[in-house]
Amino acid sequence: MAVVAVDAMGGDSAPSEPVFGAIAAAQANPRVTIKLVGDESVLERELEQLDSVPGNLSVVHAGDFVTMEEAPVEALRKKKDSSIARAATLVAEEEADAVFSAGNTGATVVASSLKMGMLDGVRRPGITIPVPTTKGSCALLDVGANIKCKPEDLVNYGCMGEVYANVVLGIEKPRVGLLNVGQEDEKGNELVKVTRQMMETSDLGFVGNVEGQDIFMGKCDVAVTDGFVGNVLLKVIEGLAESIFEVVERGMERDRVDSLLESPFYNKVKANLTYDEYGAAPLLGTKGVCLIGHGRSTAKAFQSAIAVAASLVDRDLMGHMSERVSRSRAGST
Amino acid sequence: MAVVAVDAMGGDSAPSEPVFGAIAAAQANPRVTIKLVGDESVLERELEQLDSVPGNLSVVHAGDFVTMEEAPVEALRKKKDSSIARAATLVAEEEADAVFSAGNTGATVVASSLKMGMLDGVRRPGITIPVPTTKGSCALLDVGANIKCKPEDLVNYGCMGEVYANVVLGIEKPRVGLLNVGQEDEKGNELVKVTRQMMETSDLGFVGNVEGQDIFMGKCDVAVTDGFVGNVLLKVIEGLAESIFEVVERGMERDRVDSLLESPFYNKVKANLTYDEYGAAPLLGTKGVCLIGHGRSTAKAFQSAIAVAASLVDRDLMGHMSERVSRSRAGST
Repeated sequence: MAVVAVDAMGGDSAPSEPVFGAIAAAQANPRVTIKLVGDESVLERELEQLDSVPGNLSVVHAGDFVTMEEAPVEALRKKKDSSIARAATLVAEEEADAVFSAGNTGATVVASSLKMGMLDGVRRPGITIPVPTTKGSCALLDVGANIKCKPEDLVNYGCMGEVYANVVLGIEKPRVGLLNVGQEDEKGNELVKVTRQMMETSDLGFVGNVEGQDIFMGKCDVAVTDGFVGNVLLKVIEGLAESIFEVVERGMERDRVDSLLESPFYNKVKANLTYDEYGAAPLLGTKGVCLIGHGRSTAKAFQSAIAVAASLVDRDLMGHMSERVSRSRAGST
Repeated sequence: MAVVAVDAMGGDSAPSEPVFGAIAAAQANPRVTIKLVGDESVLERELEQLDSVPGNLSVVHAGDFVTMEEAPVEALRKKKDSSIARAATLVAEEEADAVFSAGNTGATVVASSLKMGMLDGVRRPGITIPVPTTKGSCALLDVGANIKCKPEDLVNYGCMGEVYANVVLGIEKPRVGLLNVGQEDEKGNELVKVTRQMMETSDLGFVGNVEGQDIFMGKCDVAVTDGFVGNVLLKVIEGLAESIFEVVERGMERDRVDSLLESPFYNKVKANLTYDEYGAAPLLGTKGVCLIGHGRSTAKAFQSAIAVAASLVDRDLMGHMSERVSRSRAGST
C-alpha cells in the first residue's frame, strides 16, 4: 500500500504530463496512493478537464517550484515552498513512502538528501540506471548526483549498487566493478587508485577494474564511477543508441528493408535503450525512496515511474540498503 | 614520399598482422616507404614465407619490445632498444616521417613525446578519434594519452582538435565544445570550470559546454575532455555500438529479417563504428606524426593506418598544428 508523492511541477511538460501519468498510474494500480504535489489551482484546473478523478489520487499544495535552469541549492533556499521540497518533506514526515520528480535533477537530489536525511555512513547519494547488456543489465552509478566524489563515496556506491542489483535486477551475488581506463592495478587517476585499494579490502563482491566495453559484455553487474564520468556516459549511451537506431532505420527505409521494424526482438532492444520506457532512475543513499526522471518524461514515463516507486517501497529497498551499508561499516572498523 | 616506421612488435597478433598489413600497404602505395621495426630474425622469418617483398619495405632492427601489460615509463627505461623507442627515434632523426604502433598505448605516447619532442607550448599530447555523428564526424580528444589533465592541456586540445578537424575532416571553421555534465556555466568539476573560462577568452571557435548526446547530434566538430573521461567514453562507444549491432543482427536472424545485412547504408554505419575500419588514432602535440592502433588491429587495420599516416605527412598536419598553437599562444600573452 505504497504512497507515492509526485512532483507535478517538474519536467519539460509539467503539469499536464505528470497529471496524466499520475491518473493512469492510479487507475492501473488501485493499491497505490498518489499525492500530486504542486500549485493547487493549476492542478485542480488540469483535473477538472477529466470525467472523473480516481479515489487514490489527491493534490498536496506547494506554492512554488524550481525551474530546470536554476542552481539547486540557491533555488531551494529561496523557494521554501517548492513542489520538490514539499514532496520530499512528505516522505520525511511519513505521509508518503517515495517521491518521483522529472524536474531539476540537482534540486531533487539536494531536497531529498536534506529532507529525508542520509542512511548512516553515507555522505552523498548516487543515481543509478540499469544499462542493458548483451546478457541482461548492469547497474551504473553514479550518473550525476555527485560530481566531486571521494573514494568512500564510490565504495558506498558499490554497496548500494549491490543491493539494487540484488533486489531490483534479481542477481543473487552481484559482481562489482570499478570503471577505469585499464584492468591493471596501477591504471587511472588518484580517485580510482585509492578506491580500488579500499574496495579490495571491503566485503564487496569486487571484480576489480572494468573498462567501458566490459559494461556491455556483462563482465560486472554493478559498474561504479563518479558523477561526472557517469553523467557524461549516460548521455553518450542515450545519444549513441538514438543515433544508431536512427541510421539503422533510415538505412532500412532507403534500401526498402523495413521488416525489421516489425521484429519484436529489435523493438525490445530499442525500448531498453530508450528513456521513455525505463522511466526513472533511483537515488540511492537517502533514507526514503526517491526516483529521478528525465526532463522530457512523458505521461507514460510518469506512469511507469510511479509503479516502479511503489514496487521499490513494497520490496523495502531502503531497508535492505541501510542494513547492507551498516554491515559493511561494521566489517571495516 | 612519406616514410612510415611501423612498430612490428606491437599489437595482440604481432608480428604476423603488422607484417602482412605493411606488405599490403607497400603494394597499394608504391610512393610510400615503410620501415618495419622489430627483431630482425623474427621479421626476416615472416618475410621469407612470402613470394616477394616489395622494394619500398625494409626492416630496421630493434632487439626488444614493450609488452601490452608493462608500465610504460619503467618499460622504456629498462628496454633501451625496444621497437617503439627505435621507431620514434627514426622520426626524431628524420629517417622516417611518421610512426604507427598497435602496441602498448602508454609506451607509444611516452616514447613519441620523449624522442620526437613536443610542439612549443604543448605540455602533454592527446589522442583523437573521429566519432561518427548523424551529420558527419566529431573529433573527440583526449581519449587516453593524458589521464591527469590541466586546464591548459585542454585548451591546447581545442587548438589541435581544430587543426585536425580542418585538415583531416575538411571542416572549414570547426566548432569546439567542452564536454561537461550540463550546458550552464556553473556546471562541472574544477577542471572544466577553469578550462571553460580559459576557452572563452581564447581564439578558439568555442561553442561552450556540450553534453554526451551533443557529440552524436553534431553540435560541435571537436569535443574536448580529459584522458580519463575520454578513454572510458571511447570504450563505451565501441562496446555499445558492437552490442547494438550484435542484437540487431541476432534479432534479424531470429525473426528471419536478414535483408538489412545487404543494405549498403547499414554497412557503412557499422563500418564507421568498427575499429578495424577506422584503424588508427593520431597523437597530437608531438613534433612528428604518431598514430596509435587498437591492440586487436588486424593486417587490414595496419594497412589502413599506414596509408593514413602517409596522408597526414603529405598534408603537413604537424606544420599546421605547430603554426596554430603558436598563434594561439601569441594571442594569449
